[in-house]
Amino acid sequence: MKATILTIGTEILFGSITNTNSVYLSQQLQNLGVDVLRHITVGDNEGRLLKALEYAYEDSDLVLTTGGLGPTEDDLTKETIAKYFGTTLKEDPKQLAILKGWYAKQNRVMAKNNIKQAWLPEGSEVLPNPNGTAPGFYYTDGKRHIYVMPGPPRENIPMFRDYVTPKLAQSRDGYLYYKMIRTIGIGESDLEMALIDLIDGQTDPTIATYAKQFSCAFRVTSKRATLEESKAAVEEMMQKIRPIVGKYIYSEEDEELLQVDLRMLKERGEKLACAESMTGGQFAKSVTDIPGASAVFYGGKVTYCNPAKTAELCVKPDTLDKYGAVSAQTAEEMVRGLYLYTGCSCCISVTGLAGPDPDEGKPVGLFYVGLMYRGKVTVKEFRSHQRTRTDIRNFACIQMARMIYEALNKD
Amino acid sequence: MKATILTIGTEILFGSITNTNSVYLSQQLQNLGVDVLRHITVGDNEGRLLKALEYAYEDSDLVLTTGGLGPTEDDLTKETIAKYFGTTLKEDPKQLAILKGWYAKQNRVMAKNNIKQAWLPEGSEVLPNPNGTAPGFYYTDGKRHIYVMPGPPRENIPMFRDYVTPKLAQSRDGYLYYKMIRTIGIGESDLEMALIDLIDGQTDPTIATYAKQFSCAFRVTSKRATLEESKAAVEEMMQKIRPIVGKYIYSEEDEELLQVDLRMLKERGEKLACAESMTGGQFAKSVTDIPGASAVFYGGKVTYCNPAKTAELCVKPDTLDKYGAVSAQTAEEMVRGLYLYTGCSCCISVTGLAGPDPDEGKPVGLFYVGLMYRGKVTVKEFRSHQRTRTDIRNFACIQMARMIYEALNKD
Repeated sequence: MKATILTIGTEILFGSITNTNSVYLSQQLQNLGVDVLRHITVGDNEGRLLKALEYAYEDSDLVLTTGGLGPTEDDLTKETIAKYFGTTLKEDPKQLAILKGWYAKQNRVMAKNNIKQAWLPEGSEVLPNPNGTAPGFYYTDGKRHIYVMPGPPRENIPMFRDYVTPKLAQSRDGYLYYKMIRTIGIGESDLEMALIDLIDGQTDPTIATYAKQFSCAFRVTSKRATLEESKAAVEEMMQKIRPIVGKYIYSEEDEELLQVDLRMLKERGEKLACAESMTGGQFAKSVTDIPGASAVFYGGKVTYCNPAKTAELCVKPDTLDKYGAVSAQTAEEMVRGLYLYTGCSCCISVTGLAGPDPDEGKPVGLFYVGLMYRGKVTVKEFRSHQRTRTDIRNFACIQMARMIYEALNKD
Repeated sequence: MKATILTIGTEILFGSITNTNSVYLSQQLQNLGVDVLRHITVGDNEGRLLKALEYAYEDSDLVLTTGGLGPTEDDLTKETIAKYFGTTLKEDPKQLAILKGWYAKQNRVMAKNNIKQAWLPEGSEVLPNPNGTAPGFYYTDGKRHIYVMPGPPRENIPMFRDYVTPKLAQSRDGYLYYKMIRTIGIGESDLEMALIDLIDGQTDPTIATYAKQFSCAFRVTSKRATLEESKAAVEEMMQKIRPIVGKYIYSEEDEELLQVDLRMLKERGEKLACAESMTGGQFAKSVTDIPGASAVFYGGKVTYCNPAKTAELCVKPDTLDKYGAVSAQTAEEMVRGLYLYTGCSCCISVTGLAGPDPDEGKPVGLFYVGLMYRGKVTVKEFRSHQRTRTDIRNFACIQMARMIYEALNKD
């Protein structure tokens, strides 16, 4: 099957929200062996929605939409899709009862315009929405298929997972399998040049390289009649790839560097703690984004002001006066203080300037990372050339993960 | 002008990366008074890229593209756009010199395939890229305009800001001005019903409501001949809106609740500190995402394990034994301990279960927030019905911001 993902919502065209629905649906469709040909986003506009459907069905047989199922006047997804397929909307008594029950359960009065959410195209199949008031639906004219879902991810993710996935799994035309391989220490061009003979010589499996921020990845993909055949083809290709670029590979499971760090620390029965100034909690957040982090992560200190660095990490006021908060000396005292308090075998600290303004006569983007692993302290200076506060902080977090990775692989 | 934003990259269709370029460009084009009609994403595929251009130019006179300018074989944006406009690629000697200089400066050898990045369509105008090896370009046949930019945001954002914006500003056909108004405590349907007479009665300014996660917003937009006229029209409408829904409005400047909290704390000369278990640093990160947070934010403690709660916040082992880490008692001792260590007038704590697995016989999504503001302690229990770890943690951070907001507005 070939799919177009169609997102409907003027707020996306205003840049008010990020289109994460297309990301989620793309990932899921890949796993189901459905080729995603394109994403389209249009506003709540009948004419442009109709044109988008025409464009999509020129080469897709499957369209998935999210958005525009709300109760308000500008939500016109259902009406327009019904028009495109030459059918009409009809009040669904069962949906109306569910809708009324939803409001009753929450002790809320149903606004008059909410009744609209119980109207569905004739001949469509309901996709239940346990997390909101707008049901989705599936419709087909035999040749063209459409799944229509609400916009909020907390509603469309369970709907897709529980009601759309089983239907799509019935109609798959081949099993796609891929591995996303993560590397560190090699650029995208060099990676492609190293693998060029394998890339040029193959139609299945295919190899594609990707530049991630501050690292590179490549993807080996196969689509064969069975999942086992696809997997075998990818593994056969990996056996040719590993001798060539194996030393740059840090994960064959599409993991972030930090995930690999945590797994290695867990295997060694070691604990991690962090002390953050510039990143302000982001490193700790990244660690705790990973389910199961509690097996390894003791905790962290966000010492955002100088008094906190002294009170919480025993950084000497003299050091702050003499070298400044953004200095190798401060980074070192932070990590030594952290070890003193926590006793974790892997302690990491960061202090720097994320901007927007320079400070202490030091430039935005300058930062220091202190690492104390099994009693050995390493401090490194970094200069981020990223332009934004967000990017500088992202860059710092990745360098922290890399320093841990290097220490773990040295010992 | 009417624009289509066209993103090129198979990795987006795989769901490997999120399309943030369309968000940024949409916001910027709005500010320039350019209407964005749609977003399209296609892979690195000549046929589908050509079709996307045809589709876009049916009603747009402006197309902005990002992606597919890399040195590798699958990058074919330039070739395909040249073909669409009936022109050809030519080596640009100046760009080749810049490219060689870039590699020399970084002490890197230029891979052979990088030369491709110095080829540009004949008749195009270069858009310099100080942050990468791929220049962008502007091309027009007099009727259709196209700006072609690289995919990485750290490259296309400065390119758009410094080279595309000045060109677009020359050709604007009206000045758009809008205000995004943030509310808390009212649902989208109720908000729309309250404003329905104003919404139905107007073509300019227009009012549109948006459901954000856990809150609602509405946007008042006007496009008039001058910026002053647009601003005046929006303000006139606001004077009608404020008497109706003013009590729900917490920001007329599209601010996050946390930004408002920080501003109020700053005005009062007060300091904020946080102690996080479940959110693992995310609240501190959200605070420090805001430039200038250092004027208000002392720092935080991420006490992810029980020993850390005791060592860092003086939570009694007895309390942890008797009530568990996820309890109102622990949340209260955490915030009292935090105050003891930091002395900040606004201290906040959170402890809960983000999942994926239940613990202590307590359900995923249960959490407690402790707030100590000017000596007064409040503890609240929350149940998040979100499905994912990320959403549960997001929900907790927003509730923390809301508890601070309510305390600040009570006193």
